[in-house]
Amino acid sequence: MPNIEIKLEPLTPKAFAPFGDIIEAAGTADMMINEGRCGRFHDLARLDFGGEAARAGISIFRSDACALPYEVKLMERHPLGSQAFIPMSTDPFLVIVAHDDDGIPRTPRAFLTQPLQGVNLLRGTWHGVLTPFVDDAVFAVIDRIGPGNNLEEYHLKENCIVIE
Amino acid sequence: MPNIEIKLEPLTPKAFAPFGDIIEAAGTADMMINEGRCGRFHDLARLDFGGEAARAGISIFRSDACALPYEVKLMERHPLGSQAFIPMSTDPFLVIVAHDDDGIPRTPRAFLTQPLQGVNLLRGTWHGVLTPFVDDAVFAVIDRIGPGNNLEEYHLKENCIVIE
Repeated sequence: MPNIEIKLEPLTPKAFAPFGDIIEAAGTADMMINEGRCGRFHDLARLDFGGEAARAGISIFRSDACALPYEVKLMERHPLGSQAFIPMSTDPFLVIVAHDDDGIPRTPRAFLTQPLQGVNLLRGTWHGVLTPFVDDAVFAVIDRIGPGNNLEEYHLKENCIVIE
Repeated sequence: MPNIEIKLEPLTPKAFAPFGDIIEAAGTADMMINEGRCGRFHDLARLDFGGEAARAGISIFRSDACALPYEVKLMERHPLGSQAFIPMSTDPFLVIVAHDDDGIPRTPRAFLTQPLQGVNLLRGTWHGVLTPFVDDAVFAVIDRIGPGNNLEEYHLKENCIVIE
């Protein structure tokens, strides 16, 4: 089976919009707080924790490292809620996402973050597992806490390789 | 007026519990995800975004630096919701909090974070403004988005100085 090569893209709001939001201090702050000492960039993520019995939670994910070229074997999506990843260090990481094609993630795309960028994945967005480049990478994750099965996994049939 | 000296304390779950939660990867992960590559430390914060019309939001705060000794002049609290601070770098920062005494913050305490620690302040907890030690320090903030006045400020009458 031939390899499908996925070329790394910079993470920009326009390119990433169909999949989610970039959580970063871009441009000018929406308001100055703390007597002018601090800028607030307000309400940056389309959070969605649907369901009566559900709520937002903050968890920590601590992940092993990956390296390029990286083979995307597993993708997953959360049908019941959005999921935001806030890196707790300035190390860049890889954000792999894909459009849905009748229940199958099609043509994955791979975005490289900059320091001080987090992402929020919209509800139901196919995404790769966490792919930092350093071991024990720590992320704060804001996602849905509640009943129901919120995880769907898909093992890719093709050899999808992320390259620089 | 004599100075009131506030000695810096390490940020530990026990000392901080009356004020909020420490958001960190402590001990063993609650579950392993991503085919064993990633640990999830689950649901670490007592989030509270009360009110029918309110919801959780993620914003970015970018703050000026402070230095020790640091005079606590202004404290604030959010009567309608909790507020979590996730540092997006590994630089430590200062968390200043106080118990409420009939509408007045009493005897502030100052906690020093370690790398990879965030905090969640419980609804209504008196706290200082953001106090990182580097300029342009960036935090993801998870707090309440909704109607109503969610900010109360108090200018301290005493000279409260945080020392090492």
